Amino acid sequence: MSDDQRFGLARQVTLPGPLPLDGGGSLSPVEIAYETYGTLAPDRGNAVLVCHALTMDQYVASPHPRTGKPGWWRAMVGPGCPIDTTRDFVICANVLGSCMGSSGPASIDPSTAHPYAMAFPVITIRDMVRAQALLLDHLGIARLKAVIGGSMGGMQALSWPATFPSRVEAAIVIASTARHTAQNIAFHEVGRQAVMADPRWNAGDYYSGEAPAAGLAVARMAAHITYLSEAGLTEKFGRRLQARDAKSFGFDADFQVESYLRHQGLSFVDRFDANSYLYITRAMDYFDLAEEHGGMLANAFRGTLARFCLVSFDTDWLYPTAESRTIVHALNAAGAAASFVELSSPYGHDAFLIDAPDMNRIVAGFLGNPA
Amino acid sequence: MSDDQRFGLARQVTLPGPLPLDGGGSLSPVEIAYETYGTLAPDRGNAVLVCHALTMDQYVASPHPRTGKPGWWRAMVGPGCPIDTTRDFVICANVLGSCMGSSGPASIDPSTAHPYAMAFPVITIRDMVRAQALLLDHLGIARLKAVIGGSMGGMQALSWPATFPSRVEAAIVIASTARHTAQNIAFHEVGRQAVMADPRWNAGDYYSGEAPAAGLAVARMAAHITYLSEAGLTEKFGRRLQARDAKSFGFDADFQVESYLRHQGLSFVDRFDANSYLYITRAMDYFDLAEEHGGMLANAFRGTLARFCLVSFDTDWLYPTAESRTIVHALNAAGAAASFVELSSPYGHDAFLIDAPDMNRIVAGFLGNPA
Repeated sequence: MSDDQRFGLARQVTLPGPLPLDGGGSLSPVEIAYETYGTLAPDRGNAVLVCHALTMDQYVASPHPRTGKPGWWRAMVGPGCPIDTTRDFVICANVLGSCMGSSGPASIDPSTAHPYAMAFPVITIRDMVRAQALLLDHLGIARLKAVIGGSMGGMQALSWPATFPSRVEAAIVIASTARHTAQNIAFHEVGRQAVMADPRWNAGDYYSGEAPAAGLAVARMAAHITYLSEAGLTEKFGRRLQARDAKSFGFDADFQVESYLRHQGLSFVDRFDANSYLYITRAMDYFDLAEEHGGMLANAFRGTLARFCLVSFDTDWLYPTAESRTIVHALNAAGAAASFVELSSPYGHDAFLIDAPDMNRIVAGFLGNPA
Repeated sequence: MSDDQRFGLARQVTLPGPLPLDGGGSLSPVEIAYETYGTLAPDRGNAVLVCHALTMDQYVASPHPRTGKPGWWRAMVGPGCPIDTTRDFVICANVLGSCMGSSGPASIDPSTAHPYAMAFPVITIRDMVRAQALLLDHLGIARLKAVIGGSMGGMQALSWPATFPSRVEAAIVIASTARHTAQNIAFHEVGRQAVMADPRWNAGDYYSGEAPAAGLAVARMAAHITYLSEAGLTEKFGRRLQARDAKSFGFDADFQVESYLRHQGLSFVDRFDANSYLYITRAMDYFDLAEEHGGMLANAFRGTLARFCLVSFDTDWLYPTAESRTIVHALNAAGAAASFVELSSPYGHDAFLIDAPDMNRIVAGFLGNPA
């Protein structure tokens, strides 16, 4: 087994573009940072694209260079895993707009030689997918064996066959949705306002000074509540107090859940760019696959070659099972092959990241692995 | 009909105290601002105490002096209303810790001649109730015909018979809970962190300068999401865009739900003190009526004279029906008379404030009105 089956190969390319964008205009050049695992087969037929969620990155099965933490989907990607790197050539690219090496608001704008900041164009999920297609062109991969993702990664996995009907053989969409609801948008708007309320945000122009860490931490805390189930929070924390075991009658973190949220907020700001958080949440809020196809979701999937696998979690209140069911109905109406499973988990939306052996078995089976 | 049946009489008293507090220590003097409606009967047997929610105030049926808006429960309190001011003497007092005339962090600390700010003691729901009892003593009211409230007002309405078992004949508890859950605490903690992240908060010491309006607005936005149901948000806003009818591909409020939330945040900061928001959310998070009674909720109600009426709303995900049911089970176990109704409403937690003729009928019937 070669090292690049077990450990990712970190790569970065600068593609000339221009990449036309949904908002009008285009981006040029387009930088894409990505990891690969395994070896591309001579017929180039074993490429699997893994799409990451809002705050994740290309380090799907490699240690994160800033935090040193292991990859975010190690149980899914690796030798003998459901996405088996001894068989598949796995690509995971940092999405457009993010901050781990792909073009985003922190990138240098060639026209000014300074970071784009808020001059970076507002992008969409489809723009992210188009950038990934540029990368596949660069790698000489005409067609994907599969595209897979959870949460915002699932939006990309849906957008792929809708945008490139003949370039995807299979799409796996986990804990995701075909459009952001009013409540989804509302939570993201609170996060954006928290960032923008931080004076250090300075209309996005903070790269030569201090970042708006306080605002970004609040945004992360608010979002984090939506990633967990009420029952999961109760099981994990309930009303348990911190170690001192009595109320402080002050404003320190008395309850364990307060301390947990503060930690989530603080650790996030060390690894993520506030402007990227604005751009990516905006892309998610704009996502409405039906709207892109004449208002009818089934139209998004007419003519696709892909077969689909949908997975939802029963305690996910961010993208509840009903959202996956809506997608399955549209796939059925379009005559696309679709399988769908709702899994039981106490972990809410985060279930797809935490511990889901059932999910792993479903993905393995769908990709044709032995059980 | 006298004017004070139709319009409230605004009053404020400064009681010498000291008021002993759950956190240790005491408060002295205790200022209480309150409104009354109707006339106290010669036998003093017609007093109804209305308890307000987190960001509400004593202006239950009178115009708000800062915003000019009509009272927050006009359909409930007034001549011919369920709480009929031609029959009942209605009292509504600004809670301890708030900012509409009762003692709170913006009040002058007599020991320094400056606002208390964060030197104000951390208070509990039971402290609020004890302050109300001081007010009743001052008014010569030994026993309440009824105490009623929604949300945090319902916590007070529960705490009243638990704290003063012989002073309450009836308690009406609407859209409320006997304890804050981990998720409830989490949302409040996000709001507090948003306030504290605003540099203008300045550790609470901002009364001689600019208030932390940006942080408080974010806190209000996050809280507001919890007051509405997902279905209600979808019905009210869906993914509808603002008037310009096309995505801006920028960070202005494109979606109506964004504009609505921003308005909620901005209008709140004109009428509410950020430190009061910290203190009152803390009091709610500390609330756990069972914990105050040896860990068994039924113990809170043993020996009470009161009969109880519980109302919940099916789309309230802040204090869902299960929380009311827990209270009813405890009341049953304690042998207290209890009636309970879950009402259907699209409006989520806010249903008790918005439009609930069924709720009004239930309250009227429970208080012995003709239908």
